[in-house]
Amino acid sequence: MTTARRRGPDLTEAIMRSTLELGQEIGYAKLSIEAVAARAGAGKHTIYRRWPSKGALLLDSLLSLNESALDYPYTGDVMADLREQIHAAVDLLAGPSFRPLFQALVGETQHDPRLAAALNERFIAPQTAKTLARLQTARDQGQVSPAFDLDLAMAVLSGPLYFRLLITQEPLTHQYVDRILEALFTGMGTGA
Amino acid sequence: MTTARRRGPDLTEAIMRSTLELGQEIGYAKLSIEAVAARAGAGKHTIYRRWPSKGALLLDSLLSLNESALDYPYTGDVMADLREQIHAAVDLLAGPSFRPLFQALVGETQHDPRLAAALNERFIAPQTAKTLARLQTARDQGQVSPAFDLDLAMAVLSGPLYFRLLITQEPLTHQYVDRILEALFTGMGTGA
Repeated sequence: MTTARRRGPDLTEAIMRSTLELGQEIGYAKLSIEAVAARAGAGKHTIYRRWPSKGALLLDSLLSLNESALDYPYTGDVMADLREQIHAAVDLLAGPSFRPLFQALVGETQHDPRLAAALNERFIAPQTAKTLARLQTARDQGQVSPAFDLDLAMAVLSGPLYFRLLITQEPLTHQYVDRILEALFTGMGTGA
Repeated sequence: MTTARRRGPDLTEAIMRSTLELGQEIGYAKLSIEAVAARAGAGKHTIYRRWPSKGALLLDSLLSLNESALDYPYTGDVMADLREQIHAAVDLLAGPSFRPLFQALVGETQHDPRLAAALNERFIAPQTAKTLARLQTARDQGQVSPAFDLDLAMAVLSGPLYFRLLITQEPLTHQYVDRILEALFTGMGTGA
């Protein structure tokens, strides 16, 4: 007896891909587990067993795009490396293709504490660790001010992007990223 | 014939207050126009006529707390003035009392473009104008670096707060605000 149902990693990949495709086609609000199951060739209970909510399924699907794409390059020039990494992050999650889904996900986390915790554990915390490591190297090499509070780096670097993503909802462009980086390196103070 | 129904500014005030009270008691998800109407002594059609959605009603109710509370003080020391204004903003909108409602509002704006536009027009844009004006004065007085990109000031100052409010969902404290301000004035660069 054979079955047309996919299994294991292939099935997971089909579910992730179907979630993203359907999410882009019909939007998060109309997305349903049933529709994802049908497109992926999976049983809907298979999906419910692994993902407790539509938000959890979307989180995993968006993270499946990520892989190691958001690692920092290392050219020796911290400003260039930050710029390249943040450009990649913007292209991936805030480009026209996935941005509405990423916004919907963050919207969901405002009333789903488990989903908020999962977003932090699986995406924000690892990115924070990478950012901190890159900046610590730069500080050791004298490229970052010893007075700069490195523990705030993720909030200071990402905050202005999330402000535009979630609050003003303007386009996130490479040019915007570059201006933010320039401003953060300059600092507001006169140094006087 | 007399009526117990309130009218005009009194009625508006009762609706705003009832929205905030009920929102704090039962949370945004369970909040209903009917319940607000009942508590405020208003007809529910009166509310629907003025506010197209629950989100729009919450936005106005949160803004009714604001008044001129978020104007910048002017002591002549820009760092002290920014600190005092941001502390006030944090106490008002991100204190334990209203924070869940403000988070719910921003969550709603992720799938309601009209509400997102209203939040920007009625809260973000006026605050941005005030922030820009305060920093321009400071730059004229040599307290802010002439190289700092002032048009980004709102994103740079507020972004890290929204990052904590919406993404990591950690407490927003005066101490966090102070550390962010110090980091932004220092800048990341060595000035080399």
